[in-house]
Amino acid sequence: MNETIETILKHRSIRKFQDRRLSDRQIRTIVECAQAASTSSFIQAYSIIGVKDPEKKQRLAAIVGKQDYVAHNGHFFVFCADLYRHTMIGERENRDVLESIESTEKFMVSIIDAALAAQNAAVAAESMGLGICYIGGLRNNLDKVQEILSTPERVIPLFGMAVGFPDQDPGTKPRLPFSHIYHEEGYKQDQHTYLQQIDEYDKQISAYYEERTGGKRRDTWSSQISGMLEKKSRMYMKEFIKKIKLNKR
Amino acid sequence: MNETIETILKHRSIRKFQDRRLSDRQIRTIVECAQAASTSSFIQAYSIIGVKDPEKKQRLAAIVGKQDYVAHNGHFFVFCADLYRHTMIGERENRDVLESIESTEKFMVSIIDAALAAQNAAVAAESMGLGICYIGGLRNNLDKVQEILSTPERVIPLFGMAVGFPDQDPGTKPRLPFSHIYHEEGYKQDQHTYLQQIDEYDKQISAYYEERTGGKRRDTWSSQISGMLEKKSRMYMKEFIKKIKLNKR
Repeated sequence: MNETIETILKHRSIRKFQDRRLSDRQIRTIVECAQAASTSSFIQAYSIIGVKDPEKKQRLAAIVGKQDYVAHNGHFFVFCADLYRHTMIGERENRDVLESIESTEKFMVSIIDAALAAQNAAVAAESMGLGICYIGGLRNNLDKVQEILSTPERVIPLFGMAVGFPDQDPGTKPRLPFSHIYHEEGYKQDQHTYLQQIDEYDKQISAYYEERTGGKRRDTWSSQISGMLEKKSRMYMKEFIKKIKLNKR
Repeated sequence: MNETIETILKHRSIRKFQDRRLSDRQIRTIVECAQAASTSSFIQAYSIIGVKDPEKKQRLAAIVGKQDYVAHNGHFFVFCADLYRHTMIGERENRDVLESIESTEKFMVSIIDAALAAQNAAVAAESMGLGICYIGGLRNNLDKVQEILSTPERVIPLFGMAVGFPDQDPGTKPRLPFSHIYHEEGYKQDQHTYLQQIDEYDKQISAYYEERTGGKRRDTWSSQISGMLEKKSRMYMKEFIKKIKLNKR
């Protein structure tokens, strides 16, 4: 096993950081690694916003709620799907690009581009001994995030990433069984096997929580996730995305 | 600079592979690395399909068109956004999860999850000396891909990834300027600077193509990308996604 694979496999989210900032050099390396990721047809449909200002971090933390590490970390990145620059070049090149930019396809492309860049950033940061935590909670209120970060139309602040020097050392969390995530030659839909795999995993996760919480918690993955999905959260998203003129056609 | 960052920074897509298969061990390591990526609220909303069958690869290659490396590689992965298993657990736990699953928010979450997993796979493969190329061309016809790979409702075959032993050694491709992709404290919208950065980059890309093609090609990034966006490709996507019951509300 090489160093990179070791880094990747030992990933766990860090939710408590030392009171120490990343250096500008570290920030630059992380962003350059993000930029080195593949991008759909060379479109480069993402941007990254770095937040150092403590007051601004607090405002973002208020949107996320009860996650102290959004305000306290070594650096806070926001990864954005970005098709704004493409409207600009379309105008300048006098080409009608708007219908394309407003399509569901390009909406997907911009999300994929931003996520690929972000995961490179995550791995790069972790390889330097830093810890990271993705912050999807920004999507609790993208109108507010848009206002705080002055993002224009056709830019979606997709998620944050808190990065810093770890002040905790949690273990890794077991994932769904390999054979459930990975299918060969085609998607395996046999209900019996499919559900059996989830059963097995449910037992594993329940035991994992029980051990980690000294018996206080022993819910299964199925129960945790279906409970989360039952609450209809962020249902404003469709309208927000439409308002910033993406995913329209 | 550590090994991981070196691996990430020297990424370039490989489009010609030796006639040599990945070992099952290599495939497993790549998938396990994919699984180690962060996942939104632990939802694990993705699946990976591996294709070895040459005939099946040919059928996928026909959808992509003129990309020989889709049929000829060491292994072909398809990364899928997957909310199918979540409908299953919802049913089993007797919880009403469908409205949530059909939301634009969860559509985004599943795409992000799949992309984070994929980029871990890419970096892991490259760290082993393998080459990779993302294949967005599968989205030319997802009805067909769905049929070939038997993916159920609520599963989107987002993109492929050809992986293998490189049989070429291309250079890296310059990205948009650091200061154009990376903003501090907020999105910088000053039009003059913004466009100037793109101008600079256009010159750089034009020179890059000129050198690489012995003068045959010297188009700018703006011209290349706006030309691509002018062609309204994959406009069926909105309907397809709706048909498989995602991004509906």
